[in-house]
This record gives sequence, C-alpha cells and structure tokens, in this order.
Amino acid sequence: MAAPTDNPGLPQAGQTGKGTLAILAGGGNLPSVVAEAALAKGRPVFVIGLRGQADEQVISRYPHGWMDWGQIGRLFSMLEDAACTEIVIIGPVTRPDVKHLKVDSGALKIIPFLKTLGTGGDDRILSSIVRFFEERGYRVIGASSIAPEILANEGLLTKKGPSDHDRADMEVGFTAVDRLGELDIGQAVVVVNRHVMAVEAAEGTDAMLARCAELRTKRYRFRQKKLGVLVKAPKPGQEERIDLPTIGARTVEMAAEAGLAGIAIAANSVHLAEREKAIARANKLGLFLIGEKRDEDG
Amino acid sequence: MAAPTDNPGLPQAGQTGKGTLAILAGGGNLPSVVAEAALAKGRPVFVIGLRGQADEQVISRYPHGWMDWGQIGRLFSMLEDAACTEIVIIGPVTRPDVKHLKVDSGALKIIPFLKTLGTGGDDRILSSIVRFFEERGYRVIGASSIAPEILANEGLLTKKGPSDHDRADMEVGFTAVDRLGELDIGQAVVVVNRHVMAVEAAEGTDAMLARCAELRTKRYRFRQKKLGVLVKAPKPGQEERIDLPTIGARTVEMAAEAGLAGIAIAANSVHLAEREKAIARANKLGLFLIGEKRDEDG
Repeated sequence: MAAPTDNPGLPQAGQTGKGTLAILAGGGNLPSVVAEAALAKGRPVFVIGLRGQADEQVISRYPHGWMDWGQIGRLFSMLEDAACTEIVIIGPVTRPDVKHLKVDSGALKIIPFLKTLGTGGDDRILSSIVRFFEERGYRVIGASSIAPEILANEGLLTKKGPSDHDRADMEVGFTAVDRLGELDIGQAVVVVNRHVMAVEAAEGTDAMLARCAELRTKRYRFRQKKLGVLVKAPKPGQEERIDLPTIGARTVEMAAEAGLAGIAIAANSVHLAEREKAIARANKLGLFLIGEKRDEDG
Repeated sequence: MAAPTDNPGLPQAGQTGKGTLAILAGGGNLPSVVAEAALAKGRPVFVIGLRGQADEQVISRYPHGWMDWGQIGRLFSMLEDAACTEIVIIGPVTRPDVKHLKVDSGALKIIPFLKTLGTGGDDRILSSIVRFFEERGYRVIGASSIAPEILANEGLLTKKGPSDHDRADMEVGFTAVDRLGELDIGQAVVVVNRHVMAVEAAEGTDAMLARCAELRTKRYRFRQKKLGVLVKAPKPGQEERIDLPTIGARTVEMAAEAGLAGIAIAANSVHLAEREKAIARANKLGLFLIGEKRDEDG
C-alpha cells in the first residue's frame, strides 16, 4: 500500500506542475507552435501524442506521452499525472482504423458516449468531445488563445495576388462555403470560372483537391493557365476550440497540382500550419495565398 | 455543278421525311425509349449517335448516323438531310478527350461559341447549347415530352421502403440538394445518419458514390447494416430539356457498394434509365428506390 498523502489527486513535487497545459496532438507542426507559445509565456506543457498521427520529431522536444485511439483510461491518467486541467486539441487526425483500435477499460466505460458520435454532423461530434472533457472537470481551450499566430491573418501572404478573375471565383467560393456551412457540410470548395467544381464533405480537403487534379486533366486539358481558387472558411457557429479548418504546405502543393491559381481563406479563422514553408511553397509554385476579411467578422 | 431544284434546303423524296424527330444520343438505353415512344405515335426518328458514347446496339435499330465530338458541320448536315427540325438530346456523355477530338470546319466556325462554354456552371452551358440550336432554326424538346415514362414517378418503386431513420436522412438530403441547386452545384448528395457525407459537383454521381464506398470502408467499417441515402433532384430552374438528373441500374449497384440503404429522387423530374433492370437490381440488393413529391411540384 502506498504511503498516504494529504491529497493524492494533486500533482506531486517534481511532476510537470500546476497550470501545465495539455496539448492533445494530431499531425503536423501546429502542436509545437502551441507548445512554444505556452513556454514563451512561462507556462509548462505536457504533450499527449496520438499514435500514428502525431509526429515524434515534433512532440519529443517537450515532456510528452503517447496514447492510442481508444485508450481513454490512459489519456485521463496522463492528464491527472501531469496535473493538467486545460487542454488544447490541435493537429489533423484521420479517423481510427477499427482493426488497430486498442480499447482500454477507460474507453469501455464510455461506450454510450462513443455511440452518440456516430450520429449527425462534425459540429455535433466536436461539441460532444468538448462537453465530454468538460463534464470530467477539464477545460478545452482554442489553440489560438495560446498561439494567436497560428491563424492566417488578413491580407495577401504571397508575392502574387489574385486577378480580377480569381476575385470573382473567390466571391462565388465564399458564398458557397457560407451556405454549405449552414448545412454543416464541409469547410472548403474549389471554384473555377465562377463555377463550383468540387465541394468538400467527409472526404477532406486533400481528397477534394486530388479529385480536382483528376477532373482538370480530363476536362480542362487544353488550359495550361492556372485557374480557379480553393476557398476555405469555418462553418458559421463552428466549434472553434477543436477543429478550425487548416491549410499548410501540402495544401499549397495539392492546389498547384489541381492547376489552381491560389487559395483564399477566411482571415483569422483558419489555421496556417508550417506558415513559412507554406508561403515559400506558394511563392515558388506561383500561387497566391490570401486572408479575406468576411462580413461576419465585421 | 448540281442540278438546280426549287428549294435545295428542303428534304427530298425518299429521305426520312418531314416531322422526323432527331435524337442526339449519348449512352444507355434512354435514346431507344424516346425512339420507341415517337415511333409508337407514328413519328419517324433519326438517331445521331455520339461516337464513343452511344451504344451501337441501341441506336442501330433505327435510322441513324454517327458523329464525333467536334463534328458540328457533320451534325447539321445530318439534321438537314433527315429534314429534322426538332431535337431530343438524351443519354449520358463524358466530356471529350481533347487528344481524340475531331474538329470539322463546321466546328471551327463556332469557336467563339465554344469558348463561352468554358465559363460558368452547367446550367449556363446547357442553356447555351439550347440557344445555339435555336438560333439555327432548330427546336430542342425535352425527352419526357415524347416519352413521359422515362421520368421516375412518385411513390415506392421497390419491395423495400425507407425506414424512419432513412426518411430522416432523405429529409436532410432534399434540403441540401435544394440549397446546393440554388448555387448551381450538382444534383445529388449522400446522407448518412442525418449528415451530408458527400456532395456531387463536377465529378458526377458515380464518382461520388465510389468515394462514399471508400470512406465507408475506412470510417464506418464496424457498421455492417445498410445505412444512408442517395438523394437526387434537379436544380431549381434547371434546363429540363437536356440534362435532367438520371439514375439507372449502375447507380443502384454503386449505391449498394457504398453501403447505402436506398435512393430517393424527386418524383417526375429524374430520368430512370433501364427502369425494369434498375428496380430488379434494387430489389435483389435490398435497397429502396422511391420518388418523392417535392413542395415545389405542388
């Protein structure tokens, strides 16, 4: 039997310490952007990497642990050990492959909750996850409240800017994502010649851009010119603490492969991963990248 | 020099004759459904098959000719020879592969027109094609004005009907296609558990269903049950004379591969190709097929 302490639930000396920020990390470098921002403000961090998703090179710079999808018991025991009460959830994840799902006893307890995730749109699922943590005494906070710099700001980010033709495509695109968002459908569209060529739903932005590249080859072979715009914006009323739309260097590359002229995002509400790399890639490939202030911001 | 006639523009004796209906045929059996309906009313037909698209076995039963994409001169000379002034355009086509495009001098004359097709949504392109024929003295008429039976009617077409759960998915789907149609985007969505899983834009229904089958395998592996609905309806104000949405036996098969419970279409405004075969396939695969009366019909 362990020696009694005054309050065994509180962190012990030598642990990460009170006020530690938990970062539940998916892929890419955004978890480290959040970690650096917290550390710069003197706040300790503990990063929990989702195995198969988080980048070991990124998170191993910080105090960290690993969990598999389904290891909910392990997740809460790590949160408790690190004495974290605030959690940032950041970085893209792909849904679990059921064949490789490791379910611990902590997860078995919450099967009724997991079942509710199967119904309804992404917004509903994300709200459920936030509520799930909050009911257990944790607070989920937005990554940008720790690291405002991860949001793509307003204005042109690249050397090249949109032409009038591109601006017309952008206008159609923003109208479309707004309307689609009201139906809880996706966060992105591709517009070519003022026509919505593709709509993102469950397949994600990369799969949509790959489809556009294929369509472009088939249907628009005679046009060599870069044409069309990827428009990305959050849904109206979206749960902004978990899953803001994100673009990065890979998005820029795939947009170039689809023959697009550029990418327009809603300013201050889309994450820009690998900021410098993404902008450099866009400049090299001759694409524009622009943050547009939307009416609803004003 | 040819011998002069009173009016060389009019049809000669022995040709197909005045009042002949021209059927510009894409793939599938719908061209023959239209041809049979016209012939049953005593109206002669002349079928112009688009090479690589129209089914030789289908159109060779009728007086017919062939054209390649781009042989606009040949098209008009066939229409004139057959003395047709009314045209039905029917059957799915894929856009031309530019490498194999045969362009005749008739097409070269209309390059400015062809260029206008590159801009804007499908509706605009279809309206342009109708106007193009009309400016040359031809009338484009809807296939269903000749053969009303090609429209899927109201009511349940299969043994199995939608469950309450399916009906909830259908409701979400019809709302979504209506809203998407206002943006001139696609004619179909897939809804699973009241969530729009996929939206059809330029890629077409088959590609969307293939994507759903893939997503389903990845994300919904643990669900064996048929779940979700393909909802298809015309856009509000769509050019109904050319390109009404169409479903057929292949659509049923792909919906089954995507794990869907059934297909719901807007009654009396979606073409049902291979009617008997499509319904038999749905019955065999355990899917429902239903025509829903929409508010705007009432």
